[in-house]
Amino acid sequence: MSRPHAAVAASANEADQPTSLVLRFGAERPLALDGGGSIGPWQIAYQTYGTLNADRSNAVLVCHALTGDQHVANIHPVTGKPGWWESLIGPGKPVDTDRFFVICSNVLGGCMGTTGPASLRADGDGPHAVDFPVVTIRDMVRAQAALVDHLGIESLFCVVGGSMGGMQVLQWAASYPDRVFSALPLATGAKHSAQNIAFHEVGRQAVMADPDWKAGRYILEGTRPEKGLAVARMAAHITYLSEPALHRKFGRKLQERSAPTFSFDADFEVESYLRYQGRSFVERFDANSYLYLTRAMDYFDLAADYDGALVKAFKGTKTRFCIASFTSDWLFPSSDSRAIVHALNASGASVSFVEIETDKGHDAFLLEEPVLFATTRGFIDAAARARGLDGTGKL
Amino acid sequence: MSRPHAAVAASANEADQPTSLVLRFGAERPLALDGGGSIGPWQIAYQTYGTLNADRSNAVLVCHALTGDQHVANIHPVTGKPGWWESLIGPGKPVDTDRFFVICSNVLGGCMGTTGPASLRADGDGPHAVDFPVVTIRDMVRAQAALVDHLGIESLFCVVGGSMGGMQVLQWAASYPDRVFSALPLATGAKHSAQNIAFHEVGRQAVMADPDWKAGRYILEGTRPEKGLAVARMAAHITYLSEPALHRKFGRKLQERSAPTFSFDADFEVESYLRYQGRSFVERFDANSYLYLTRAMDYFDLAADYDGALVKAFKGTKTRFCIASFTSDWLFPSSDSRAIVHALNASGASVSFVEIETDKGHDAFLLEEPVLFATTRGFIDAAARARGLDGTGKL
Repeated sequence: MSRPHAAVAASANEADQPTSLVLRFGAERPLALDGGGSIGPWQIAYQTYGTLNADRSNAVLVCHALTGDQHVANIHPVTGKPGWWESLIGPGKPVDTDRFFVICSNVLGGCMGTTGPASLRADGDGPHAVDFPVVTIRDMVRAQAALVDHLGIESLFCVVGGSMGGMQVLQWAASYPDRVFSALPLATGAKHSAQNIAFHEVGRQAVMADPDWKAGRYILEGTRPEKGLAVARMAAHITYLSEPALHRKFGRKLQERSAPTFSFDADFEVESYLRYQGRSFVERFDANSYLYLTRAMDYFDLAADYDGALVKAFKGTKTRFCIASFTSDWLFPSSDSRAIVHALNASGASVSFVEIETDKGHDAFLLEEPVLFATTRGFIDAAARARGLDGTGKL
Repeated sequence: MSRPHAAVAASANEADQPTSLVLRFGAERPLALDGGGSIGPWQIAYQTYGTLNADRSNAVLVCHALTGDQHVANIHPVTGKPGWWESLIGPGKPVDTDRFFVICSNVLGGCMGTTGPASLRADGDGPHAVDFPVVTIRDMVRAQAALVDHLGIESLFCVVGGSMGGMQVLQWAASYPDRVFSALPLATGAKHSAQNIAFHEVGRQAVMADPDWKAGRYILEGTRPEKGLAVARMAAHITYLSEPALHRKFGRKLQERSAPTFSFDADFEVESYLRYQGRSFVERFDANSYLYLTRAMDYFDLAADYDGALVKAFKGTKTRFCIASFTSDWLFPSSDSRAIVHALNASGASVSFVEIETDKGHDAFLLEEPVLFATTRGFIDAAARARGLDGTGKL
């Protein structure tokens, strides 16, 4: 289904010429990768909000989830929608851009300006596509560290993120303990479960089953695996919600009709909602990026780099942690968060944990959740005092 | 992906000339349908085991689930595998074929010999395909009742089934209360939830996104939407298991390798397991049947036919019920079974309920579950005594 339109064209352009800040590294400064080898030239696209103080001590790095990007608190250049975490980040918000210098970058392997499969190769031979190397969460974090170096920030005041973003937070704390003053991993886990790998595999198979995927070379062929990617998104979207949330929102309500049509039309509201989620996703996201980023999550197993003992990942850490999970999140259930808390406790770290009662499922970390906001605000404020940051972000 | 092979050819033939008993109705005896109109000529394929007693009082009707068929206790003619419920049904088993006359028919809309989308039209114009009418659980039960009539059985000793089979059991008890002496609906619900509809919709979209689906007319076109159907099966298969079961079986174990390959190969065992599930399913199942049967489940809402009050569906029933659910079943959680039990209690029915502790998920009803076997045996034996059936199925 080749259906070019404005949003798709805009999205494709974002992969190389993002509507945001971008930091470019030449071939002489390649990025080393966990899978072996390196990539270069490469670039990282990012946004910043607020002002870095003279001490460079008030920087907050926000790590985005699977389908997020650097547009955390501004209108999205492709969709025209508000930033994906404006509920939490902005002037006067729990992560207060009047006090903190907030950085958010597109992940390595993404499609919004950081080097990924949709980015053009240096040799002019089209996009990397499936020749792009499989990257890991640690590779993403290594790329972010290069950006943080460039900004002249030795130690981040806070690293925060949910889901795949939370994995990056944990990896930051493990890889660069002295550079993370405080860490907020939300709705995440230190490894991906078998069930989560299974759901990701279904999504990848859906993309790769689409003949418009063209063995990954769809950009060169002028096609887009929209149907496959939409199916992948639909399946994933169910896992981001909870059964009670779906029941509350949709139940068995029919879509603008009073009786079933006895057909395969979207009779039920939940069907047309899912179809819309699939359709709108493909307008802003690259199918190969979806393959690479789901793979990075599947590979994540922080303890594996530390002889299988998660406690060793945090040995001697001085980072202050706040962990939050949501009762109805079945993608990253509270038990995943508790495993992190246990490891942090065993390593003697400063850690607080809150399990937030909600029926909104995994997506709760992105939604209006007063307890999450209060928790974040309280943790950030206390950490700011501990770092000697006053209300304006100055020392 | 057109890949004809022996199993596929055998499967296609089963739709019209099943390797089982088959009862054919001419155009003068059409089957009325809930969606309006009727279908005819039509046929119902079935198997029987054991001997009907002189009183015709020892018949057990087994209702199969979404992807099951009539081959409940014999080698499957396409796959060569044992019957799908041989753990429960056979000589000396809880449903003892030495005592009872067991009937199992392929559902209306199926693809193993009962009329469905893969069956040939009477006008010789190829298979029904998507011109086949959308059918309901009640339509399936109406077809079964015609078979039971033909066999001269006025009252079934027991109707038993799990999942979609359990929906049919409930519908039997509601539609034909005087013809059901005892009923065993397992791992089921009186309606399909929004989350279940959502998962089914993903599966249908995966099938219909496959260009080899050819707008449903793939048999005439000589193609098969194997990739789409495999993706649908993979997604559904995850919902039949539980996170603990997946963790126990697979965890994050790698597939015949000691380190990740940094590729999109099936690195994890759970990935290759799912791919196998998808591949093997398409060899024995018709894609359009999958669309129709998932739709029938989605439409199922027994209370809707009774002013929204489930209790009215069972008003004055003399049927003896035994309901069983499994603690780790998140497709039909115990709360669904409890809702049935409450309605039965409110209608003054004889009902026992057991919630079986297991980590095997929804599929538990098909697996070795000693508590399920003991429960079934105890219920069946007590019901047999109440009906005056001795140990040999004779009066």
